[in-house]
Amino acid sequence: MNFASDNASPAHPKVMDALQKANEGFAPSYGADPIMGEVRDCIREIFEAPEAAVYLVSTGSTANALSLATFCPPWGAVYCHEHAHIEVDECGAPEFYTGGSKLVLLDGNHAKIDPADLNAKLQGAAPVGVHNVQRGMVSITNVTEFGAVYTVAEIAGLAAIAKDWDLPVHLDGARFANALVATNASPAEMTWKAGVDVLSFGGTKNGLMAVEAVVIFDPAKAWEFELRRKRGGHLFSKHRFLSAQMQAYLQDDLWLTMARDANAAGKRLAEGLAGIPDASLMHPADANMIFAQMPRGRHQAAFDGGATYYFMPMNATLDGPPEDQLGARLVCSWCTTPEDIDRYLELISG
Amino acid sequence: MNFASDNASPAHPKVMDALQKANEGFAPSYGADPIMGEVRDCIREIFEAPEAAVYLVSTGSTANALSLATFCPPWGAVYCHEHAHIEVDECGAPEFYTGGSKLVLLDGNHAKIDPADLNAKLQGAAPVGVHNVQRGMVSITNVTEFGAVYTVAEIAGLAAIAKDWDLPVHLDGARFANALVATNASPAEMTWKAGVDVLSFGGTKNGLMAVEAVVIFDPAKAWEFELRRKRGGHLFSKHRFLSAQMQAYLQDDLWLTMARDANAAGKRLAEGLAGIPDASLMHPADANMIFAQMPRGRHQAAFDGGATYYFMPMNATLDGPPEDQLGARLVCSWCTTPEDIDRYLELISG
Amino acid sequence: MNFASDNASPAHPKVMDALQKANEGFAPSYGADPIMGEVRDCIREIFEAPEAAVYLVSTGSTANALSLATFCPPWGAVYCHEHAHIEVDECGAPEFYTGGSKLVLLDGNHAKIDPADLNAKLQGAAPVGVHNVQRGMVSITNVTEFGAVYTVAEIAGLAAIAKDWDLPVHLDGARFANALVATNASPAEMTWKAGVDVLSFGGTKNGLMAVEAVVIFDPAKAWEFELRRKRGGHLFSKHRFLSAQMQAYLQDDLWLTMARDANAAGKRLAEGLAGIPDASLMHPADANMIFAQMPRGRHQAAFDGGATYYFMPMNATLDGPPEDQLGARLVCSWCTTPEDIDRYLELISG
Amino acid sequence: MNFASDNASPAHPKVMDALQKANEGFAPSYGADPIMGEVRDCIREIFEAPEAAVYLVSTGSTANALSLATFCPPWGAVYCHEHAHIEVDECGAPEFYTGGSKLVLLDGNHAKIDPADLNAKLQGAAPVGVHNVQRGMVSITNVTEFGAVYTVAEIAGLAAIAKDWDLPVHLDGARFANALVATNASPAEMTWKAGVDVLSFGGTKNGLMAVEAVVIFDPAKAWEFELRRKRGGHLFSKHRFLSAQMQAYLQDDLWLTMARDANAAGKRLAEGLAGIPDASLMHPADANMIFAQMPRGRHQAAFDGGATYYFMPMNATLDGPPEDQLGARLVCSWCTTPEDIDRYLELISG
Repeated sequence: MNFASDNASPAHPKVMDALQKANEGFAPSYGADPIMGEVRDCIREIFEAPEAAVYLVSTGSTANALSLATFCPPWGAVYCHEHAHIEVDECGAPEFYTGGSKLVLLDGNHAKIDPADLNAKLQGAAPVGVHNVQRGMVSITNVTEFGAVYTVAEIAGLAAIAKDWDLPVHLDGARFANALVATNASPAEMTWKAGVDVLSFGGTKNGLMAVEAVVIFDPAKAWEFELRRKRGGHLFSKHRFLSAQMQAYLQDDLWLTMARDANAAGKRLAEGLAGIPDASLMHPADANMIFAQMPRGRHQAAFDGGATYYFMPMNATLDGPPEDQLGARLVCSWCTTPEDIDRYLELISG
Repeated sequence: MNFASDNASPAHPKVMDALQKANEGFAPSYGADPIMGEVRDCIREIFEAPEAAVYLVSTGSTANALSLATFCPPWGAVYCHEHAHIEVDECGAPEFYTGGSKLVLLDGNHAKIDPADLNAKLQGAAPVGVHNVQRGMVSITNVTEFGAVYTVAEIAGLAAIAKDWDLPVHLDGARFANALVATNASPAEMTWKAGVDVLSFGGTKNGLMAVEAVVIFDPAKAWEFELRRKRGGHLFSKHRFLSAQMQAYLQDDLWLTMARDANAAGKRLAEGLAGIPDASLMHPADANMIFAQMPRGRHQAAFDGGATYYFMPMNATLDGPPEDQLGARLVCSWCTTPEDIDRYLELISG
Repeated sequence: MNFASDNASPAHPKVMDALQKANEGFAPSYGADPIMGEVRDCIREIFEAPEAAVYLVSTGSTANALSLATFCPPWGAVYCHEHAHIEVDECGAPEFYTGGSKLVLLDGNHAKIDPADLNAKLQGAAPVGVHNVQRGMVSITNVTEFGAVYTVAEIAGLAAIAKDWDLPVHLDGARFANALVATNASPAEMTWKAGVDVLSFGGTKNGLMAVEAVVIFDPAKAWEFELRRKRGGHLFSKHRFLSAQMQAYLQDDLWLTMARDANAAGKRLAEGLAGIPDASLMHPADANMIFAQMPRGRHQAAFDGGATYYFMPMNATLDGPPEDQLGARLVCSWCTTPEDIDRYLELISG
Repeated sequence: MNFASDNASPAHPKVMDALQKANEGFAPSYGADPIMGEVRDCIREIFEAPEAAVYLVSTGSTANALSLATFCPPWGAVYCHEHAHIEVDECGAPEFYTGGSKLVLLDGNHAKIDPADLNAKLQGAAPVGVHNVQRGMVSITNVTEFGAVYTVAEIAGLAAIAKDWDLPVHLDGARFANALVATNASPAEMTWKAGVDVLSFGGTKNGLMAVEAVVIFDPAKAWEFELRRKRGGHLFSKHRFLSAQMQAYLQDDLWLTMARDANAAGKRLAEGLAGIPDASLMHPADANMIFAQMPRGRHQAAFDGGATYYFMPMNATLDGPPEDQLGARLVCSWCTTPEDIDRYLELISG
């Protein structure tokens, strides 16, 4: 019953098998391994984007920061939700990689950007020429940090506002698979068809050891990205071990299967919580992250029974009146079982 | 009747005289000129700070950005008002000079930081270790961008909150002289005695051609500042021309005289506006910047009569219904005359 | 017969086993995994440095760049050999991470820094105060890029020169294990006892998939390093997979065994080359990298027989007169067999 | 007899008059002053470049660093002479402004780039794709740091090598006027007609208080330059005081007159030195900087008589055997008189 994060989960056995298989003999380094060629082709096919540039890195912060730096100049503003991962969880990696751009923070429920606020902030920006930072880029996160999922239409709506100002659009898809299966959208529909220029295509949280792809739909900036990746220390010499993970991820739709399982666990958990009178959801249970409030005593019972997860706010603790409401973030992963969910529900119902 | 900005005003004749006088023969370059020695001594005396490090630069953005960079690491957050000059008017200079720190924006009326908001933001920051940017620094602007003046007690209150977290405090004093004469505080009271660590001590807006001093009260970081100044291209070879301006500024309290004159003009303007029934102040008229609303038709009359100033918001125009209220920023300078004010009031009263 | 690079070699089977073992169930993320605790203890013991800070990253460029950035300010000069990896093979990662420091290039045979040149460059640096970049740091590479190995005394000699100017010393130990077994020095002797402040402790080139440790002997800068690592996107969420590799590496001296095997292969190769009359070594065959010149025709025969490696200079090719001398870099890895060596020698002897 | 530097000299009286004249009443700020419009037109005419973008900054380091940053990416190498001002005298400003590019140092007598070395370094650069920094830009200094002057043909020759690789060319013209009058070239011939893309057009060393122009011949990057200037803190609010200096500089060819006077003083000095048997020139006396060796005793006599200048190397002193040769840098400025020269020659001849 570990709901701390999907990044606390193990890698899928098929991923381990792929690593083992990739470990035979010598292989060209720095991305010239033959597996990477296959991965590139596969991602282009999945995304219906035969020209897309495809790169692998090992962390989500890296995928995001390199994407932003490639598309936003140092004097540009990145428009994102105030609870976006790039704002709150990356220790300023976007500012570091972009050379000091500014994140302009947007409102919106459930960590989804309010289109009206995006529009207003863009309208109001930089009225006096050189004195302000310039409009630079829009970054959207799907699944959001609060577990909500944008529909394709919502992403397209935000991207359209960005395009009014000729701004590129980044999609932070650390949980892209979970968003896809939640919406039944195709990868192309969720990305370039909706106006996304560059995608952080997550793998680590969804069953890989440590691989994210960056997909750049217009390859004009591909070489710049490669230089930024190398310069950031993110080009792996034994790159085949990234390639192999991603290949296993894509094969036979393993990535979608794992996301479906994680989302199903999330749904089961949300439905169970609905049956507990003094528990309530804080955000829509669209995917695999469930945010719920309930009396502290219920959390105590869960922890006593071996459950692990974070409270909301994250610095809250079990110390305090047992009857007080206390928020929690419960993250289901590809390997969360129905039994895990049921056991947890049993504990907090006790 | 130019109220566009105090930086549209000329330099004081005594400043020009000092430049002329400094232009005789050869002089050591890069700050080794004898005038700079006298300026340093004079500023230390004025601030009752015999150990302070004192440097001259030519723009306010530079004074601010170098101050922030010297005291805040790249991964630190600078807490400032959402309307602070460093946030809205420097094209990201703070981010550039600090190596990508993040400005955390605070609320508060009249561009004065709300202490409760500062406290809350600091309390809520960085609960999860390395993932967030770290608490870095607090930057206060006096006079604020909306013309309000912090009292010494208010500054001390904000600085005390900063000190609870061992954070250094920067004071953006682009209009420091105006703030001083508005409060009758001494330079020391307004700065280090209130908890300020580094001051941007403005001159350009108050009668100089282009000089700001940076005063660092604890000189431990002085050498780092010197390197940052040089590296930023801000160390003048013919430095005597900066020194001479600052010397003239300080001599016989010229700086305070000019600020008093500017503030008096502001007061005369505010009092005049009080007599116009459909005009109203948007912010306190504490110093030399007056923010006022009145029907557009009154602005039209003023512009027809030769007045110049910015509207609020800055992209507003004279096009529109004459009866609609329209905000304006009216900045008085050291050379704004009572006649200028009276003529303006006459025009808008017509 | 792949001598292209040790980073084209596979991971050791024990490393794969360790990954498999680490992949059971959930684990705390971001370095809080229990394996990391054991790794830290183990490295501290191996280095006789109970206070050392120990971190894992996934590439050598990262280990180097973060080390330099933590110890050298943006206005500092990093003194290194003109053929150092940080200068020629990292696309400016040191400049990026340090915020723009300058690499000052030193001479010396076999990519070993000439102490006299280091001394001269440090003596001559920055005679005029703020105008130059300042003396910042010394970075030494062992094994050098040309396969030579510094003795402990040589490292201590360079570090002593650095200490004359109070400069920190970095050791790029991408092939640290190979250097150790070549000199029979202990880890402590080769590092902190010789004056090294921070070590890039390589693993990837010597049998790991992608792990390097950074060992900071005085932990005063540990927290800054952690922030820089996170901010650079280099903190792994599923960190256990880095920890597990390093644990397997250290267990039962696997790292030293692999380095001994690689060095033995190098020695066998060098000895074989000595028997070929028109072949000659370009650099000392101290470890696992052999640089040799021989007629192009011999290289042709080797490539025809299936060998792979780089020429020196790297843009040289097999096109040209077969009798002309052509340099080559032949890198042996932990899994290079005596049979590989003998087969290669046979091919070029034919 | 101050030969320390041309930047120790005063401003020309006409420049002071222009400042005085510009100080009347209010003026639009941040470069919108009418004088700037005239200056822009004038520079375009002088350079026969009707489309050129023209900007003013206050220091030479700024002009250089902004020029480099605008034309060279962070991962680009700037090829320059090992004694170039950007390498040795700007505390890393180029690295700071470019975001960490690398200066690749070239050989050549008298601080003039050896074309063969430029060609060789460019040929040899980056043979292995993403691993190296990329070829970025070439920067040439005329007058060189050692007082030599490139002919137009020499500049065109270097620029042609740069163009073979599609690299932009920067000309550091801190002493551009001196180079022009030394060669009788026109401004256009020395710059864009020879292949120069961006020019640091010096004024401060040649009779201004503190103004340099940046001239960008293809204006495609003009807006980026403006943002970089503002972000660097280099956009003056009371910009008219920069404009007025530059206007006076250009009017009636004052800039060329001053340079002619300085060069003539240099020539007189060089000719006088030729008559002293144990004195010798270290570099060609092409312009206003004379580098000469003579016995220390002669320097002692000069200093005893009131002369001031730097020795070569700069940390050399008067302490030592009077008969030993000691180098000196003797810089003549626009206001160095024949009497100054003759008096100096008399002192050292004594």
